[in-house]
Amino acid sequence: MNQEYIKPDNWSIIEEGFEEGRVKSSESLFSIGNGAMGQRANFEEGYSGETFQGSYIGGVYYPDKTRVGWWKNGYPEYFAKVLNAPNWIGINIVVDGAELDLATCKAVDNFRRELNMKEGWYQRSFSVTLSNNTELSIKVTRFLSLDIDEIGAIKYEIKPLNKEVEIVAIPYLDSGITNEDSNWDDKFWNTTQITSEGRQAFIEAHTMKTNFATCTFMESKVLLNGAELKEKPSAVKEDDLKVSHSYLQRVNKDETLEIHKFGGYVVDTNHEREALVSAAKTVLKKASELGFDALLALQKEAWAKIWEMSDITIEGDVKAQQGIRFNIFQLNQTYSGTDSRLNIGPKGFTGEKYGGSTYWDTEAYCIPFYMATKDQEVARNLLEYRYNHLEKAIENAEKLGFSNGAALYPMVTMNGEECHNEWEITFQEIHRNGAITFAIYNYYRFTGDYSYIPEMGLEVLIGIARFWQQRANFSEKKGKFVILGVTGPNEYENNINNNWYTNYLAKWCIEYTLEQVQKVKEGYPEDHDRIIGKTKLTANEKMAWENVAKNMYFPYDSEKGVFLQQDGFLDKELISVEDLPASERPINQKWSWDRILRSPYIKQADVLQGFYFFEDHFTSDELEKHFDFYEPFTVHESSLSPCVHSIQAAKLNRMEQAYVFYLRTSRLDLDDYNKEVEEGLHITSMAGTWMSIVEGFGGMRMVDDKLSFVPRIPDQWKRYSFKVNFRKRILNISVGQDGIAFELNGKEEMSIRVNGNRVVLPPHKEVVVQK
Amino acid sequence: MNQEYIKPDNWSIIEEGFEEGRVKSSESLFSIGNGAMGQRANFEEGYSGETFQGSYIGGVYYPDKTRVGWWKNGYPEYFAKVLNAPNWIGINIVVDGAELDLATCKAVDNFRRELNMKEGWYQRSFSVTLSNNTELSIKVTRFLSLDIDEIGAIKYEIKPLNKEVEIVAIPYLDSGITNEDSNWDDKFWNTTQITSEGRQAFIEAHTMKTNFATCTFMESKVLLNGAELKEKPSAVKEDDLKVSHSYLQRVNKDETLEIHKFGGYVVDTNHEREALVSAAKTVLKKASELGFDALLALQKEAWAKIWEMSDITIEGDVKAQQGIRFNIFQLNQTYSGTDSRLNIGPKGFTGEKYGGSTYWDTEAYCIPFYMATKDQEVARNLLEYRYNHLEKAIENAEKLGFSNGAALYPMVTMNGEECHNEWEITFQEIHRNGAITFAIYNYYRFTGDYSYIPEMGLEVLIGIARFWQQRANFSEKKGKFVILGVTGPNEYENNINNNWYTNYLAKWCIEYTLEQVQKVKEGYPEDHDRIIGKTKLTANEKMAWENVAKNMYFPYDSEKGVFLQQDGFLDKELISVEDLPASERPINQKWSWDRILRSPYIKQADVLQGFYFFEDHFTSDELEKHFDFYEPFTVHESSLSPCVHSIQAAKLNRMEQAYVFYLRTSRLDLDDYNKEVEEGLHITSMAGTWMSIVEGFGGMRMVDDKLSFVPRIPDQWKRYSFKVNFRKRILNISVGQDGIAFELNGKEEMSIRVNGNRVVLPPHKEVVVQK
Repeated sequence: MNQEYIKPDNWSIIEEGFEEGRVKSSESLFSIGNGAMGQRANFEEGYSGETFQGSYIGGVYYPDKTRVGWWKNGYPEYFAKVLNAPNWIGINIVVDGAELDLATCKAVDNFRRELNMKEGWYQRSFSVTLSNNTELSIKVTRFLSLDIDEIGAIKYEIKPLNKEVEIVAIPYLDSGITNEDSNWDDKFWNTTQITSEGRQAFIEAHTMKTNFATCTFMESKVLLNGAELKEKPSAVKEDDLKVSHSYLQRVNKDETLEIHKFGGYVVDTNHEREALVSAAKTVLKKASELGFDALLALQKEAWAKIWEMSDITIEGDVKAQQGIRFNIFQLNQTYSGTDSRLNIGPKGFTGEKYGGSTYWDTEAYCIPFYMATKDQEVARNLLEYRYNHLEKAIENAEKLGFSNGAALYPMVTMNGEECHNEWEITFQEIHRNGAITFAIYNYYRFTGDYSYIPEMGLEVLIGIARFWQQRANFSEKKGKFVILGVTGPNEYENNINNNWYTNYLAKWCIEYTLEQVQKVKEGYPEDHDRIIGKTKLTANEKMAWENVAKNMYFPYDSEKGVFLQQDGFLDKELISVEDLPASERPINQKWSWDRILRSPYIKQADVLQGFYFFEDHFTSDELEKHFDFYEPFTVHESSLSPCVHSIQAAKLNRMEQAYVFYLRTSRLDLDDYNKEVEEGLHITSMAGTWMSIVEGFGGMRMVDDKLSFVPRIPDQWKRYSFKVNFRKRILNISVGQDGIAFELNGKEEMSIRVNGNRVVLPPHKEVVVQK
Repeated sequence: MNQEYIKPDNWSIIEEGFEEGRVKSSESLFSIGNGAMGQRANFEEGYSGETFQGSYIGGVYYPDKTRVGWWKNGYPEYFAKVLNAPNWIGINIVVDGAELDLATCKAVDNFRRELNMKEGWYQRSFSVTLSNNTELSIKVTRFLSLDIDEIGAIKYEIKPLNKEVEIVAIPYLDSGITNEDSNWDDKFWNTTQITSEGRQAFIEAHTMKTNFATCTFMESKVLLNGAELKEKPSAVKEDDLKVSHSYLQRVNKDETLEIHKFGGYVVDTNHEREALVSAAKTVLKKASELGFDALLALQKEAWAKIWEMSDITIEGDVKAQQGIRFNIFQLNQTYSGTDSRLNIGPKGFTGEKYGGSTYWDTEAYCIPFYMATKDQEVARNLLEYRYNHLEKAIENAEKLGFSNGAALYPMVTMNGEECHNEWEITFQEIHRNGAITFAIYNYYRFTGDYSYIPEMGLEVLIGIARFWQQRANFSEKKGKFVILGVTGPNEYENNINNNWYTNYLAKWCIEYTLEQVQKVKEGYPEDHDRIIGKTKLTANEKMAWENVAKNMYFPYDSEKGVFLQQDGFLDKELISVEDLPASERPINQKWSWDRILRSPYIKQADVLQGFYFFEDHFTSDELEKHFDFYEPFTVHESSLSPCVHSIQAAKLNRMEQAYVFYLRTSRLDLDDYNKEVEEGLHITSMAGTWMSIVEGFGGMRMVDDKLSFVPRIPDQWKRYSFKVNFRKRILNISVGQDGIAFELNGKEEMSIRVNGNRVVLPPHKEVVVQK
C-alpha cells in the first residue's frame, strides 16, 4: 500500500519529491500510450539507478522459447511476448562536462511529475545540482499523439540557475534493448540499418522469428530562449545499435535551452516493408510542420473528445474521482478500438508481465466498457479478433485431444496460438471459452446489432459448444454429465471437479448456441446454410449437445442452500479471511501452493462470477446467500476481484462494502494495494472499475431490450455522473443523494426503467427522478 | 520395444552388430559400476556420432539453479544433480594418420559387446576399415574394480590386419565435460591443476558451489605382443582442461598392440583435500603392482561372492534368467551399502535423469532386496541416511507451513534438501513420508533388529506422525478427518482429495508411531526420555494424533465394495485399458496432461500399493476385488508398476498374468519397453523385479516373526531358486514344478512356514516339500 504517495487531484496524477526507490513504480503510474504504442515513464536523460525500461508497439511481439521445469504434452513451444522496442525518447544531457543523472547528482529539488489526464500529457520538472555544482532547472513535457499515432513528442527545457554553462544535448535512438522477462536471453531484435540525415535519424530493425520490420525514428531541434538554433548536430553511430545527435550550446544563467524531439515507430504491418524510412519521413514532416505546441493542442482536443464520451464525475471525493479517471484514461491509452488485430493486454503498454497478450479479461471485463463509451464497432472489433482466431482455437483443441471442430480459445494469446504453459491454467482454465460466448450474447444484448452472429459469431459459438459437449463426460455414479479436472476463475483451486461456474457456463453456452442456430436458420437462411455446410453440424450432434446441457451436474449443498464452488468444497477447513492473521496475507506471497489449494480461500469471484454474468437467473435472496457464503473466504488477490464484489454489494444495498471495494479497484495501482505496481498497471481490471460505478452504483442493466437503472450513491459522495453510448444515443446519468437526473442526447425519445418504473426520456431535456 | 536386440544368454548381455542409432541405448545397457562410481559404456576412442557421455562419482553432485515456468512459493532454489565427472576412459587411436572413429570409418564388422555379469567386466570387439583402408581388429576390456573402488581398468588391444602400420595411442583425461540436463548451462566444474608425470597424469577439479574436490587420474602402458614398451609417452595439455599422453609405435600385420590404462577418481569426501594427488598415486601404485590381469582376477572373485549370496536361477527360460540377473547385477553395481552417505538413484550411474538422487523408491522397493541379499547393516545404512536428514525434513515441512517438528522428507534429495520443483509432486506427493515409516517397520520385521528404533528411528517416526496429524483436517461435512490436495503413487492424478493410499498410510503411520513410543518407553526408558526431551512430545499431542488416526476418512463405494482411489473416482469415464486403442498409448506420450488427469488410467499401483504394503490387513477376496477393479485401468507406465502387480497376480494364483508382468519388469530395459533406455536404466525398479520372484512366485512373507513361503512356478519354467539372508542365516529356496527344496546354511535349525504348514529346517540339509 502506498496511500499517501500520489497527490489527490481531480484530473492529474501528481508525484512530488524524488525517491530512487519509487522510480520503477512511478515509471508505471505515469505511463503514456495512444492505442498504437505506449511507454513507461522512463527518464529521457541517462539514469544509472534502478529502472525498468519499456516502450511497446501494439501488435509487435516475439515468440520466446517456452521455459518450463517439467514439460507436459500439449505445452506450446513458444510464449508470445510484448516486446520492449527500440528507445526513441533518450536525450542525454552533459553540462560543463558533467552528465545529468538523477541517481548520481548532488541534489534533486522540487521534483514533480504530472500526468495530465484531461489533456493527455506527462510532465516532469525539477532542479538539480550536478557533480560540478552546476545548478539547473529542468522541465520535460512528453506525449504520444492521438492524431498521428506513430509519433510522440518531447519538449526538454533546461535553465542554468547559477552560472553560464556549456550544454551538450544528445538526442538518440537505441535498439540495444532487451526484455526483462526474456526466458533464455535470446536476442529479440536484429538491427539492419542505421541512417542519420541532418536533424533526423532512423534505425531499421526487425524482430527475430516473427520478422516484424520496424523503423524507429527521431527528429530534433534546439531553441535558445524560444529562438531555433540553425546549427546542425554532429552524428555518432555506436555498436551498430545506436545513433546520437549532439548539440553543443553555451547558455547564460536564467536562459532556457529547449530541445524539441519527435520520435516513434513505423511498422510493416501498416506500411510497405521496403519503404519504412520514407514512411517515417512522412510522419516526421507532418509533425514538424505542426511543431510541438500545435501537436499538443491537437492532443488536448482529442482527449477532450474522449472525455466527452467516457468521463465519470464524482463530487465530494477527490480520491474516488482521481481513481476512476485514472482507470478510464489508461483504458483509452491502451486500446482505441480502431484495429481488430489488436487487443487489451493485462498490462497494456506499461510492462512486460503476462506477455502483454489477450486474456479472457477482454470478454469478461473490457467489452462492457468499450461498448458503452465508444461506437459499437470497437466492441465488434474485439469480437472479430476472436473470430479471426477460430481456426487456431480449433487447432489448439485438437492438440488436447478434441475433434470435429471443437474450439478451445487459448488462455493467453497474441496471434491466436496458445502461449501459456502451466498445465493447471493452460489446459484446465477452460471457462475462458465460455466468456467468449457470453461476450457475443452481451454485445447483441447491449447494441442490438445481431449481424455479428450470422456473419461470424455463430461459427465461434458452434466451435465452443462442441468443446463443452466433448469436454463433459457422463458419470454413471451421478447419472449426470460432469466436467472433471478444471481450474475456475478462482485460480487458488486447480484440477477440481465440477466447478459450478464452469459447469453452469458450459450448459448455458450450449443452450445459447442451439438458440442462435435456430434463430439464424429462421432469420438468415443463407448464412445458416453456409455455416452448416462449413461446420457440418448435424441434428444428431445438436441432440448430443442438448443431452449434456439438460443433464449437467451442479454441486449443491441443500443444508446451506448454496451451489458449491466445486465437489468437496465443504471438506475444507472453513475459516473466514477475517479470522486469518494479517501476517499470513497475501497468501500468494506467504503460503506454499499446496496450502493455498487446500484452503477455502478464493482469489477472485468464482461462483459469484456466475451470479454476475447470469444475475437474472437468480433471485436477490439467492445472490445474498451466495455472497454471504463466499465473500468471507475471498482474499481478492486478483485485480479482477473487487469490481464484481462491489457491483454485487451495491445490488444488495451494502453501500459501505461496495464503496470499500470500489476504492480498492479504482485505486489498486495508484495506492499499490498489491505491492507490484512497478511491474506495470492492471489495465484490464480498470474496466471492472468502470463497471463498478455504472453497473454497481448506477445499477445499469439490460432488461427486455431496454436500459434499466437502480441507482445508489455512497454516503461519501455528493453526486456522480456517467454517460452511456446506447445504440448511437448518448445518455447522461447523474446521481445525487436525493435524485437522479437523466439527459438524452439523440433525436428520438427513449424509454428506460428506473428502479423498476418506466421512464420516457425526451431528447435534450433533463429528466429528474426523485429517490 | 526392442525384443530381439540383446542376445539371450544366462550370464551375459550381448550385442552383435554395429548400428549408430543404437549407440546411446547400448551405452546405458552396458554401463558398469562398483557402488562408488559408475559409467556409461561410452567408447574409449573418439566417436563423432550421437552419444551420451556419462561418468559419475557416488555422492558428488551439483545444485543446479531451478528452472521453472511459473514459480510457486516453497519451490527449492536448487536442484541437486548427479554430475557428469571428468572423463578418464578416453584413448584416441590414430593409425597411419587416420583417426579411429566408428561414425566415420569405412566399415565396422563383427561388432560385439559383452557385459559379463558373472565376472563383472565389459568387452567390446570389432574389426574396422579406416578411411585410409587400414584394417584393424580391436578388442577392449574394461571394468571398475570392486576391490579398489576408486579405480577402473582398460585393456585396449589393436591388431593390424592388412599391413604394417604406425599407431599413435593417446590415453587422456578430460575435465571439459558437461551435463546434458544442465538447466542454465552453468559451469559445474572448475579445473585447478593438471599434472603429468611420466606415465601418470592428474586433473584436479572441484565442483562449483558444492566444492567437492576431486582428482581424476590415469596411468598407462603399452605392450607389443605382450612385451611392455619402455618408452615414455609425450604429454600435451590442452585448454587447461585436458591432458594427453601419446605413444607412437610401428606394428606389423597380425601383431597386437595393447594399451593398459588405469584411471579413476579420488575425492575429498574420503581423503585429505590437500593430498588428493598423492592419494591417487597410492591407488595407482596398488593397481599397477597388480597389473590388469590380476586386478581382473580379483574382480571375478568379488563378483562370485556377490552372486553366491544374491543369485536367482531360472531353468528353462533364458530370457527370464538373463532378465533377473541383469537386475541383480545392476543393483549391485549401483549400491554396495557400505557408505551411509550414499543412496540409490533411480538411474544409478547410468544417466542423469531424475537428478540421480534419492526417491521413495529406496524405502518402498529397494530395502527388501538389500535386506535379504546383504548383511543387515546395508539396509540399516539406508535407514540411517534418512535419520541423518531428519533436520532438513523438518525445515522442509516448515517451509510449507508445518510446525512443532513435523517432518516432510523431500521428494528427491541428495543432501536432505528438497530438489524437485513441480508443485503437484514436490508439495503434494506426500505419501513418500509414509514409505519411510514403513521401511522402519519392515526392517525390524525382517531383521529382528529393534535397536534402530530407540537409537534413531523413533525421532523419524515422531516427525512423520506430526506431519500427518497436521496435514489432515477435520471435515464438518464428513465428520471425519480428510487429507486434501495430494498426489498418490499414481502420478496421473494430481491435487486429489482423500487418496485412499495416502489416508491409509497416514493413519497407519500414526498408530505405528504411538505403539513404538510406548514400546521404547517400556524397553528403552533412557532412549525414551532422551527422545521425549528432544522432541517435546506431550500426551495432548499424542491424543491429537490418535484422534486423527481413529477418525480418518476412507473413500469407499459400497455398491462395488471397493475403496476408491480418491474422492470422485467413479465420476470418470471408466473405459478399461483394453478398450483403449493401442495408438493412444503410452498415454504419457500421446495425451495432454489434463486428459490424462481426468481419465481413469493409473500409472502404477496406488490402492494396490496399499494392499501390497498391508496385505495382511485384508482378505484374499478383498485383494482380488480391488485387483480386478483397478488393474484394468492400469497402464503400467511407471517402471515401478509391473512388479507389484506381478506379486499380487501370483498371490491370486494368476500365473500367466504374473509371468507377463514379471517379464515386463525384469526386461524393462533390456527390451526397452518404454523406449527411453538411452537415457539410462531404471535401477530402483530392478529391486521390484527381485521382489516379484521372491515375494511373488516364492510367496515369501514374514508371518509371526517367521519366514513363510507359498511358492508357485510359472509353466514356462522348469525350476527357479533364490537365497535369503535371514537374520545371519542363508536360506536357499529352489522351486520346481512339483516340489520345493530348502537348504539352510547356518548353525541352528530354523522353523519356517510353507503353504501355511510349519517346516523345521535343520542346518545344511536339503528339505523337500512336495507341491
